[in-house]
Amino acid sequence: MSEPIGIALLGAGTVGSGVANLLHQERELLRRRVGAELKIVAVCDKKFPNADALPESLKGAHLHKELHDAIKDHKVKIVIELIGGKTVAREAVLAAIAAGKPTVTANKALLATHAEEIFGLAESRSAPIGFEASVAGGIPVLRAIREGLSGDRILSVRGIINGTSNYILSEMTDKGEGFSGVLKKAQQAGYAEADPTFDVEGVDAAHKLALLASMCFGTHVPFDQIYTEGITKITAEDIAHAKSFGYRIKLLGIARLQDGEMELRVHPVMIREETLLAKISGALNGVAVEGAHTGVTHYTGWGAGGDPTAGAIVSDLVAIARYLMSGGTLAPARILKEANLARIPVRPVSKIESAYYLRFSVRDRPGVLAKLAGHLGSAGVSIAQIHQPLRSEAEGVPVIVLTHRTREELVQKALPVVAKEDFLTAATVLVRVEDERL
Amino acid sequence: MSEPIGIALLGAGTVGSGVANLLHQERELLRRRVGAELKIVAVCDKKFPNADALPESLKGAHLHKELHDAIKDHKVKIVIELIGGKTVAREAVLAAIAAGKPTVTANKALLATHAEEIFGLAESRSAPIGFEASVAGGIPVLRAIREGLSGDRILSVRGIINGTSNYILSEMTDKGEGFSGVLKKAQQAGYAEADPTFDVEGVDAAHKLALLASMCFGTHVPFDQIYTEGITKITAEDIAHAKSFGYRIKLLGIARLQDGEMELRVHPVMIREETLLAKISGALNGVAVEGAHTGVTHYTGWGAGGDPTAGAIVSDLVAIARYLMSGGTLAPARILKEANLARIPVRPVSKIESAYYLRFSVRDRPGVLAKLAGHLGSAGVSIAQIHQPLRSEAEGVPVIVLTHRTREELVQKALPVVAKEDFLTAATVLVRVEDERL
Repeated sequence: MSEPIGIALLGAGTVGSGVANLLHQERELLRRRVGAELKIVAVCDKKFPNADALPESLKGAHLHKELHDAIKDHKVKIVIELIGGKTVAREAVLAAIAAGKPTVTANKALLATHAEEIFGLAESRSAPIGFEASVAGGIPVLRAIREGLSGDRILSVRGIINGTSNYILSEMTDKGEGFSGVLKKAQQAGYAEADPTFDVEGVDAAHKLALLASMCFGTHVPFDQIYTEGITKITAEDIAHAKSFGYRIKLLGIARLQDGEMELRVHPVMIREETLLAKISGALNGVAVEGAHTGVTHYTGWGAGGDPTAGAIVSDLVAIARYLMSGGTLAPARILKEANLARIPVRPVSKIESAYYLRFSVRDRPGVLAKLAGHLGSAGVSIAQIHQPLRSEAEGVPVIVLTHRTREELVQKALPVVAKEDFLTAATVLVRVEDERL
Repeated sequence: MSEPIGIALLGAGTVGSGVANLLHQERELLRRRVGAELKIVAVCDKKFPNADALPESLKGAHLHKELHDAIKDHKVKIVIELIGGKTVAREAVLAAIAAGKPTVTANKALLATHAEEIFGLAESRSAPIGFEASVAGGIPVLRAIREGLSGDRILSVRGIINGTSNYILSEMTDKGEGFSGVLKKAQQAGYAEADPTFDVEGVDAAHKLALLASMCFGTHVPFDQIYTEGITKITAEDIAHAKSFGYRIKLLGIARLQDGEMELRVHPVMIREETLLAKISGALNGVAVEGAHTGVTHYTGWGAGGDPTAGAIVSDLVAIARYLMSGGTLAPARILKEANLARIPVRPVSKIESAYYLRFSVRDRPGVLAKLAGHLGSAGVSIAQIHQPLRSEAEGVPVIVLTHRTREELVQKALPVVAKEDFLTAATVLVRVEDERL
């Protein structure tokens, strides 16, 4: 049995504690798997005033005041960054890699927005970078793409990759309640943060989609070109209408290769209730990867939480430890060497094809349906169903239109024309519909 | 770019052709991933009379008459065994490994029953062995366990790992038809073989369970100690009753660690209709792995078929090719080095705990329910529900009993006592019930 492999833990919050506990509880099992002990020898977290304040699972580790001292500690062979954010965390990750130390992080925001800088430096310093925990928490979906599906050409990836949004939409669906009430309850239950913007506006999902797309297609992903739309405008009413047509509304991240272009989008989607993704409820995550030969494979599990995320981080530690002990090279972080990554043009959302759910709020008077249908038809949008639920309100009855698959720009052309009609009583709601039975 | 990596293809049936096509169609993509071309240079399959008969995707490969010549071909760096069976295939795999050539196989029967011989030789010759395709076809579940969940302690694995049985049970469920009629249609549609024994009797699932359990728990698995029960006794009637209680009947492979013992069993199970495994229908496969820290992760996709299986085989080729080009060592085939594998005692099925569905066929006369309940109670089996569907037949009305969770031997003690009663008109049907909401 070899010497222990020293690890620096930068940030000992929920996930960091989970990692420390896991390494502590499973140290014999991991020692047998790796051939050496995985041991946290250095910690840096301002919440510990001194070494006596360290919890049992971190006892014996050196408490550093400065990140750079922890990184440079000569006993440290692997660095775990769990600081979060993009300033201090970026410095720490770059410093660790620059020191040639393999680095593990769960920081999707950092990796999605500084991909070239970080992955590029890691490759040039031959410092492996582990980031399994950054997408879909405990589900080993990045490894599935990088190694499990390495024999196939990936056509698309679609996923429920933000647990907070999925929890909120699931509660709205099950209980028929509105967004803001459910959000409040989610905050009280710890499923949503005090400032939920990143989660409910789709930004967190976009960070994860950037990483997924990069690995699926072996390409750079310009984060700012990801079309991102959150769930704040989804109403209990739209969820109920969706149900009546056999659909569920989910916040999906979708990346798809088509005709040499790449769709990159995060937005609410109506999917058939019998699909596996529609069954992913509460804070679970689910990712569907479509390979040209393998077909669709699904990966489901807990996308967040200290313990599941810790499991993903430690799987990276195991892979890196095996590498450190045996030499050789790991598979490239983003499936191809950085220099070989493609630059695939991003297809703007106006050019995608989809079916659409449109909810118009109109005054209930004769001729309205004909006018709506006329405007859509003139724009080239073909209607699959039109539905006017029975209601007796004088102001603002809903008219639901489900379109056939069409180019988004045609819909976007029709809506402003409709908006000029004086029979419209509120803004029109648009939700994209995926009819594939994946 | 390096020299092509030469591959011998032993067996060019459905899966072998899928591999040849995949390597041919995706050669540029794979070349970029690996850094060298993956090229089939040797083929052995009696169906080709001469090299002119080789299909386009195999043109240029040397057609060998003898397996050993193909294996020894100096251009061959990796051997793919797709012969099937356990005699010729075993010889071929052992010969390839003995020659120090990394070997890829989809042969679960061979690996499950000759595990120590084959994995042991592979390790001693440092010849990597790839077998991702042997379990759940295109779903990279072995890699998920070996590498994605390498940071966690696995508590259980449960899976729908035989597509034929799942297809038959799904059809029986959807159409209310009996086993033999559906089997015939499955054979006509190509979902079941002319001799379906291995599939419908659970043997194929047991082979796969042996491999899953071995990797999940880092242990040897004595194949002959796997409790195996097929689906041939499942009737449309039991499926309908299961439905009425909110259950689906699935053939599951289950391996679970408990108190230092290992449950290993393949049999029909009633699972809650809202669980993800219950949604895996038709020829799909689904595996649920429960980790102590990660919780339950699910893996779903096509468990058979030429193209999905080829995808899994080529993922092994990619991993091995990277290893050949970079040196180093791959993760141990069965998660631990062979010498470190445990020998965990197998818990006999009589000692497992489960809930049970019992369907008694009884004469419809007073006092029968009381006697049934009495016999079960005397044996220590606690009844959760008892249900007598309204029927007017004089002979053989069904009485359904759902038990609470209990030790199986208590149920097995009660049934022979019941069998002695003259009110019984047919053998009692027993289906195990899993109430976990995984």
